[in-house]
Amino acid sequence: MTKTAITPTREENFSEWYHNVITAADMAENSPTRGAITIKPYGYAIWELMRDELDRRIKAEGAENAYFPLLIPLEYMTKEASHVDGFAKECAVITHYRLKNVGGKIVPDPESALTEPYIIRPTSETIIGEAFSRWVNSYRDLPLKINQWANVMRWEMRTRPFIRTSEFLWQEGHCAFATPEEANADARRMHKVYENYMREFLAIEGVYGEKTVEERFAGADHTYSCEWIMQDGKGLQAGTSHDLGSHFAQAFGIKYDAQGGGQEFCHTSSWGVSTRMIGGLVMTHADDDGLVLPPNVAPWQVVIIPVGKDDADAELAAFCDSVSERLIAGGVRAMVDSSDIKPSDKLWKWVKKGVPLRVEIGRREMEVNSLTFVRRDLGKPSAKTIGADEFVSTAASILTLMQADILARAAARTASMIHTVADLKELDAAIAAGKIGFFKIKYDATLVPEYDAIEEKHKLTRRCLDGADDSFVYVAKAY
Amino acid sequence: MTKTAITPTREENFSEWYHNVITAADMAENSPTRGAITIKPYGYAIWELMRDELDRRIKAEGAENAYFPLLIPLEYMTKEASHVDGFAKECAVITHYRLKNVGGKIVPDPESALTEPYIIRPTSETIIGEAFSRWVNSYRDLPLKINQWANVMRWEMRTRPFIRTSEFLWQEGHCAFATPEEANADARRMHKVYENYMREFLAIEGVYGEKTVEERFAGADHTYSCEWIMQDGKGLQAGTSHDLGSHFAQAFGIKYDAQGGGQEFCHTSSWGVSTRMIGGLVMTHADDDGLVLPPNVAPWQVVIIPVGKDDADAELAAFCDSVSERLIAGGVRAMVDSSDIKPSDKLWKWVKKGVPLRVEIGRREMEVNSLTFVRRDLGKPSAKTIGADEFVSTAASILTLMQADILARAAARTASMIHTVADLKELDAAIAAGKIGFFKIKYDATLVPEYDAIEEKHKLTRRCLDGADDSFVYVAKAY
Repeated sequence: MTKTAITPTREENFSEWYHNVITAADMAENSPTRGAITIKPYGYAIWELMRDELDRRIKAEGAENAYFPLLIPLEYMTKEASHVDGFAKECAVITHYRLKNVGGKIVPDPESALTEPYIIRPTSETIIGEAFSRWVNSYRDLPLKINQWANVMRWEMRTRPFIRTSEFLWQEGHCAFATPEEANADARRMHKVYENYMREFLAIEGVYGEKTVEERFAGADHTYSCEWIMQDGKGLQAGTSHDLGSHFAQAFGIKYDAQGGGQEFCHTSSWGVSTRMIGGLVMTHADDDGLVLPPNVAPWQVVIIPVGKDDADAELAAFCDSVSERLIAGGVRAMVDSSDIKPSDKLWKWVKKGVPLRVEIGRREMEVNSLTFVRRDLGKPSAKTIGADEFVSTAASILTLMQADILARAAARTASMIHTVADLKELDAAIAAGKIGFFKIKYDATLVPEYDAIEEKHKLTRRCLDGADDSFVYVAKAY
Repeated sequence: MTKTAITPTREENFSEWYHNVITAADMAENSPTRGAITIKPYGYAIWELMRDELDRRIKAEGAENAYFPLLIPLEYMTKEASHVDGFAKECAVITHYRLKNVGGKIVPDPESALTEPYIIRPTSETIIGEAFSRWVNSYRDLPLKINQWANVMRWEMRTRPFIRTSEFLWQEGHCAFATPEEANADARRMHKVYENYMREFLAIEGVYGEKTVEERFAGADHTYSCEWIMQDGKGLQAGTSHDLGSHFAQAFGIKYDAQGGGQEFCHTSSWGVSTRMIGGLVMTHADDDGLVLPPNVAPWQVVIIPVGKDDADAELAAFCDSVSERLIAGGVRAMVDSSDIKPSDKLWKWVKKGVPLRVEIGRREMEVNSLTFVRRDLGKPSAKTIGADEFVSTAASILTLMQADILARAAARTASMIHTVADLKELDAAIAAGKIGFFKIKYDATLVPEYDAIEEKHKLTRRCLDGADDSFVYVAKAY
């Protein structure tokens, strides 16, 4: 039996393995606040890389960043009928604005009770809709494309780090257009922006399609979803893009003077992805030794470990530093781990943190200007001793190749986990036979009760319609 | 009388002028949420530039970013005695986690009442202190330097855009050290990082010194403050850095195994600046025609306005685009305003938005490959017609010079507004004579009641001690 850095393994207990990978990589921890996590520096550094790249892509689509209030007047939630049903169940409610010392105990001051309570935003369609009603006056103000990076809160009962937490970080785009066609095109375009970002930057291949009517966002005409398949075969909704029709425009009075005269309601869209993607990244790429980071999202792409009998080998330290500095000059995020722990402990630390390339340099290697590197995704068999100069000049292309390899493996596994079944009977049999993943099946709205029965039996949900042929739907267990 | 783009002028009504500059530049607006503003795209783009530069400087000091929960368990606030007194008065309190439809009205569901309420962080010393108590075990874990970019909330009664709002955006650094000396040195070092950032990046010169005992942060041994002097002579506290001694370490049990054996309490520091700086930037540099942006914080450093009889002059448009593209290639944030409004309206729009360099290009200029530019800080007298190639190659150095000029003017005004007075009688007389600004006066702790009386009379507060000689204190009216 091979010893693994993470126990249990994925096969033994996927859920525990996931928690332990996150802990071993020091990415996040549970907090004293119910359902909320603390994102620790290593997890946050990954998020910064993910956020900055997506921010660039969103700006390239013409959206501008802004910031709207955290607290939403309660009555706003009631203005769009299906929206309140979808979100009112899980809100943090602010009812007082002051504390008071009553006999040594601090309590909400009854005299500070708000006549109109606020909720913490679970999403911002309502408060941004209200702003848009003032910002948009004429057809000349359209299209209006706004994005916000913010924290949001949904009072979840069953939580899991990154995947489902009461508070999370996200971006939410909100746009207003003159015509229904433009709003729909925007929702589809941003869905595609997400798909490309996920493939090119996160090295994740997913299933991208429209949600069925039953699974739409509360208040949307169309919801386009990014569905990832985790290593345990379960689905993860990693992002959504909504065509909101004129529902929010009507609820909040977002109107414009049309070029040909007369007033028209706008058509709006919204789209978002969150820190949930970090959880999906872990469950897609990590292995039984811990995190595996695609180079694009690795805070350190290369970690150099000096291996000497003498910790204070100044010459070796200087050599390692010079390699690191030359890598950094070449645009590679490199560092030397000169901390005060054993080289073997360092090695395992960085394995568990998923650093793409680990470099070990001993005295003998230094003397011939060489080093040994290992690719995290391929492990020990990939160990290679090469000249230090050659490594410096090829590191960037090794990382590029590695990013592509990680995507190719993830894509192949995703493809292998999609099963086409002819009908509900075959679906039932496939699940009974232990197949995991996404099941692609003919979608027939008249058979919804039958789907419901099978899905209930196996705890499946409709994830989304097939992007190429919406007469098919994907069903799967999901997070 | 010269017509100004903003009415009233600074002299006529500084407070109204401030609001109107912000509105005219389209930076922010009041929101339906009590005391909170919406930061509009232009204001947020300025914040992004300010934030990114400060983030680089904070990281260069060895701090790592992380993210802690928005909601703090109420009892945490009570653990550090003076902290609860300082912050408990103005908290948003979460008492329920669900809404309920009662006869068509949406109300907090009484069954979702929390037995332990939460407050929205007014600052995060408590919840980060709790985390540090688990993160720090040995002297090897020290120093621990963490920074967070986040929204915070203080239920302010009298608000003013950016300067004082219920919700605002900020960074808060939190560090733990082995010794009191290190914590104090960190608080002082970060105070200096802020000072340099404000001078070099925001082109603002201020007064930097320690707060008097009475004005310290709730729970600090020493508070070091960045005090700016606005054009109306009032002070603005633009940032603070705190040496928290071992108060929070004792309250939350942040202890470490010392190198020599035994357990010791850590000593902690915290330091923060916020979107309040945007308000101070406006009140420092703007004039009666609106915003004036130092080039470093200008979303667009150069705006090119095509001036032709024919709006659809494709040749002129192409020429403007080529100038813009060459500027961008040279690292200048440039754009062509090809919007569908009159050139004179464009000109005033960008004047009010404070764009450093406005470039106008008409057909005749294009034909001889030239253009006319105006510096926002110097206005029309600075108009200069030069070759387009020369402008492209010198724009960056014009902007550098302009940044330095704006700092020099702001620094000179700040210096002119600092008045040394011999005693309280002279202070009283200076104020009675209409002097505005900061008054530097001998600080004698035994005379506190007398200071109080004069300060009350003139609505002054002690801003901070003199950085070079702490036997002097600055008193001023303040925001």
